[in-house]
Amino acid sequence: MLVKTKKHHIDIIENGNVTSPKGFSAGGVHTGIRKAKLDFGWLHSDVPATAAGVYTVNAFQAPPLKVTQQSLSVDHALQTIVVNSGIANACTGEQGMEDALQTRKWVSEKMRVNEHHVAVASTGLIGVTLPMEKIEAGVEAMTHKDNMSCDRFEQAILTTDTVTKKIAIKLKIDGKEITIGGAAKGSGMIHPNMATMLAYITTDANVEAESLQKALRIVTDHTFNMITVDGDSSTNDTVLVLANGLQNNHPLDENHPQWRLFVEALQFVSQELAKQIARDGEGATKLIQVNVKGAPTIETARHVGKAVISSNLVKSAVYGADPNWGRVVCAVGYSNQPVHPDKVDVALGDIHVVKGGLPLPFSEEEAKSYLSNDDVHITINLNDGKESCAAWGCDLTYDYVKINASYRT
Amino acid sequence: MLVKTKKHHIDIIENGNVTSPKGFSAGGVHTGIRKAKLDFGWLHSDVPATAAGVYTVNAFQAPPLKVTQQSLSVDHALQTIVVNSGIANACTGEQGMEDALQTRKWVSEKMRVNEHHVAVASTGLIGVTLPMEKIEAGVEAMTHKDNMSCDRFEQAILTTDTVTKKIAIKLKIDGKEITIGGAAKGSGMIHPNMATMLAYITTDANVEAESLQKALRIVTDHTFNMITVDGDSSTNDTVLVLANGLQNNHPLDENHPQWRLFVEALQFVSQELAKQIARDGEGATKLIQVNVKGAPTIETARHVGKAVISSNLVKSAVYGADPNWGRVVCAVGYSNQPVHPDKVDVALGDIHVVKGGLPLPFSEEEAKSYLSNDDVHITINLNDGKESCAAWGCDLTYDYVKINASYRT
Repeated sequence: MLVKTKKHHIDIIENGNVTSPKGFSAGGVHTGIRKAKLDFGWLHSDVPATAAGVYTVNAFQAPPLKVTQQSLSVDHALQTIVVNSGIANACTGEQGMEDALQTRKWVSEKMRVNEHHVAVASTGLIGVTLPMEKIEAGVEAMTHKDNMSCDRFEQAILTTDTVTKKIAIKLKIDGKEITIGGAAKGSGMIHPNMATMLAYITTDANVEAESLQKALRIVTDHTFNMITVDGDSSTNDTVLVLANGLQNNHPLDENHPQWRLFVEALQFVSQELAKQIARDGEGATKLIQVNVKGAPTIETARHVGKAVISSNLVKSAVYGADPNWGRVVCAVGYSNQPVHPDKVDVALGDIHVVKGGLPLPFSEEEAKSYLSNDDVHITINLNDGKESCAAWGCDLTYDYVKINASYRT
Repeated sequence: MLVKTKKHHIDIIENGNVTSPKGFSAGGVHTGIRKAKLDFGWLHSDVPATAAGVYTVNAFQAPPLKVTQQSLSVDHALQTIVVNSGIANACTGEQGMEDALQTRKWVSEKMRVNEHHVAVASTGLIGVTLPMEKIEAGVEAMTHKDNMSCDRFEQAILTTDTVTKKIAIKLKIDGKEITIGGAAKGSGMIHPNMATMLAYITTDANVEAESLQKALRIVTDHTFNMITVDGDSSTNDTVLVLANGLQNNHPLDENHPQWRLFVEALQFVSQELAKQIARDGEGATKLIQVNVKGAPTIETARHVGKAVISSNLVKSAVYGADPNWGRVVCAVGYSNQPVHPDKVDVALGDIHVVKGGLPLPFSEEEAKSYLSNDDVHITINLNDGKESCAAWGCDLTYDYVKINASYRT
């Protein structure tokens, strides 16, 4: 499939994944942290890769995030990432730090990589310490051939997710075929205030470290930070991008003539993962995309988009395929932005329902039918500027309540 | 029942309501805006009453709110309030303004009160204009004896509420027995960012206008602005307080020796109404009270309280009686406040579950049993100052989704 970004073309690789770029491998194993599902996964590069990361802004940042940041700070490179699901190793204090450091040490020894080239991550229940004998068994299993497969990695990092999230694309940089791949998890506790989930992006491009960090920051703001499932930002969530340079292009930085193409490609991968996460929101039956146009500033666009995509009333109405645009308008109104009510237009798909803040006549039946699709677009034009953004979320369903009323028990 | 506020005593009047203070009457009628339920109500004072109001901060403020503010601006007095349910007269533009003004005019003529002593209010569906022949019939019915009763007023202002909300208290000011009464509605679109519902408070005390407005503002911040059902602030919601002075006390203002008692009493009435609204949140089975203690500033206390009470994950866990304190800690962490994770304590009722950011051993069974109560208290001590606050909300249930997936249809 060929995708046209603003200026360029990129190719989506059929069944591509986070190991599609040259020199990456992955695997997963069941250690018993979770009852039956795979619960320990790893992603590895044959050579140390330039790396960048963004992390949750939650004040209760979990120990594995601190250890990963420590690793990255040494020389902005990573070679191996390990992830356990089931237990988040958050709110675990000194013991949690020790466990995350111990995990890093074991992985370093097992994989014969520098300790500071190892990233560790945990996702799951808060306030429980890691069963270290199981983590040790997981590390021990990392080199066993039977455990190797990207699918096993994608499975091992999931919690309440119902599907794995993955993508890979190809593009040409300096005449070389560069690949960018991604894997992610996230279903509950997803809210735009950082990439509140786990996402790993790999590429065989050669990218300069500081530029990679800048690119990730920009891309995250437009993608992972624009999704919400339930307004709850997690303690653990992390986006890491690894560029191992095996395609030997001229190092990409902001002065490279194809820098913009690379950033667009990175954004495309991030956006696809973000949308996959939103679509798989806990209990969700639909992906909702809110497009905000005509905003005076990008901040206004984002706040309006987030207010609408976060509204339980909008989410419930979409679930019920109820074209209750009043709730959309209401959410725009309480976004605390300088909105001019009499300029606001709203459309559900191609059906224009509000013009200048006032209702337009429309076919209820047609609107109901549109809202019954798996993909619902709500477009808000503030008619007050040139900035725009997109935000993604999902409907609020009985199953969201069901899943979250009994997560632990 | 005798209630002890910080310094004083007030008496709760059994079966008291918004017409308990001297000189107030109320009624309601079915005009056909709603299928079968009462849909047009009124509250009247024998004499013009000093009045104060606070209104939604939603940018799409509805026409009736503008008309009411216009009325109040003339001489800070009101005598008659009319409310229709079923249609919110919001996003209705010029026609909506004309309809609200016409309603005010009819009421003024019918009740023989000054136009600027009439307040109008609407609650219900957004984007639909009022059926004015039905409103006219409602106004016509205002003097009919059969329609007079406070219960009919309380019924007529409801939408998805399942119960009426009311309270009245007595206290002594200048040796006179002053009464304060209240009525409210609100079930969905309830969020702390203004008193996002309708609430009417009456008193036969004599109160100076500017002081009444100040008192209402303070009280609202501590009560109606601290409740949430679903994070959605409405376009229409309003709190009005009317003081008709029929008890002939020395006019209350900030220099009156019993000013503080009066404000505490007003706060008590507001808090009781706010809690009744939270408890009757759409689909709710439980009232949740979040107490924040030890905050460095009142702003921090409020933001933390609102983050926790607004968390869908916390609300779902309470519904399922799941002592998942990790979600509480997580919400504290993403409240964007200067919180020190290693100082934070959390208790569910009297069960201490977190100390210094780390889990305490506790009986799951005991905690589950506590969370099965109709009233659930979650206490968070930040151990970083002396400020505190309370916030109120409800659990998130299947029925919330059910109600909101099909509100219009």
